Amino acid sequence: MTTGVRRRMGVEERREQLISVALGLFSHRAPEDVSIDEIAEAAGISRPLVYHYFPGKQSLYEAALGRAADELAARFVEPREGPLGERLLRVMGRFFDFVDEHGPGFSALMRGGPAVGSSRTSAMINGVRQSAYEQIVDHLGLTVPAPRMELVIRSWISLAESTALQWLDGKRIPRAELERQLVHDFAALAAVSAAYDEEMAGTLRAILAAEPIDGPFAELAARLFALVPTEV
Amino acid sequence: MTTGVRRRMGVEERREQLISVALGLFSHRAPEDVSIDEIAEAAGISRPLVYHYFPGKQSLYEAALGRAADELAARFVEPREGPLGERLLRVMGRFFDFVDEHGPGFSALMRGGPAVGSSRTSAMINGVRQSAYEQIVDHLGLTVPAPRMELVIRSWISLAESTALQWLDGKRIPRAELERQLVHDFAALAAVSAAYDEEMAGTLRAILAAEPIDGPFAELAARLFALVPTEV
Repeated sequence: MTTGVRRRMGVEERREQLISVALGLFSHRAPEDVSIDEIAEAAGISRPLVYHYFPGKQSLYEAALGRAADELAARFVEPREGPLGERLLRVMGRFFDFVDEHGPGFSALMRGGPAVGSSRTSAMINGVRQSAYEQIVDHLGLTVPAPRMELVIRSWISLAESTALQWLDGKRIPRAELERQLVHDFAALAAVSAAYDEEMAGTLRAILAAEPIDGPFAELAARLFALVPTEV
Repeated sequence: MTTGVRRRMGVEERREQLISVALGLFSHRAPEDVSIDEIAEAAGISRPLVYHYFPGKQSLYEAALGRAADELAARFVEPREGPLGERLLRVMGRFFDFVDEHGPGFSALMRGGPAVGSSRTSAMINGVRQSAYEQIVDHLGLTVPAPRMELVIRSWISLAESTALQWLDGKRIPRAELERQLVHDFAALAAVSAAYDEEMAGTLRAILAAEPIDGPFAELAARLFALVPTEV
């Protein structure tokens, strides 16, 4: 009853299968190191049949990237419940899962280069950043953030990217430490901005007031206080 | 006596002139919007003569980018004198000068895309990042930084890039505020890391001990203390 399954795949099903296979290969090597022959072999079909579904490697790469982008954006979704620090920490855990699963492909993409630097790949990366931005704005209970708050959020997203890229390069620091550190970095960047801006200070006070005494933000505050010389 | 000056330009001199002209044009528009005809006209020579010196627009773009990279790296050089916070603040001033002078070109380059995403452009960007990294390591009085310190420095460099890019997009926050904020962000990222790592804590204590009571770091500390509820 299961013979001929490959033959019976519909067009959409076959495209989806090829995208999955390609994503698996592109996750583990830079795009220039993955060939159409390899994708065909991994999918169990002929090279001309791959070209029947995708005109070339770049279009298959972009389709795989689109799949990865949707997958990553889905991991940002977090219920609006409980303290913000713990929500952020859970999202960071899922972000590092993603980075770990797609490591070499993520590095190649984010570090740029001829095989990945098309307008479409840039647009997909920006789409994921925008989706992260909107999630955070929503978690903070804001609608249209003031320019300084927008800067803090977008800066922090770029910090999360660069921290993940550096982690991938040798994994010299445990990822759990970096996930927690990034949550703290968010508080730190917001605090620096709040030190000079009353609107930011108000937002930050409201966030910190809702944090539990044993949550990641409170823990950071206690450790920072221990660090500072008492005579300051 | 000055007639025929254009004719008498040597090969190197002509190349340098073309690079200057191209850098001026590429600084103000994305590379895809600048034509060889325009470069030829601005340089006062014929289109074929441009091709005599540079095989195509991409090679001229890369030469202009190389010039800009050297110029930017030169602005990172700062005497090893006085408090670190003030040195960083002066470097941030020169960095924002550079970003302001080359705004649209800087955005196009850093946001990537087909016209700028070659391996050579990536390598030049990484070269500038590495030079910034080495300058900071040297200012901190370190030789081979521990992994956590390296992460803080490289993360901060990427934060400076993303802050500058966001500033260029509408200039909604005064640049002087962002220059000071970035100096504070450096202290904040180091402090977060130091809260969990004794080696970082030692380095940070040594830096802060050398800071004057009215310098940017001390000012930040005072403002942050004012922000935190007293019962913490």
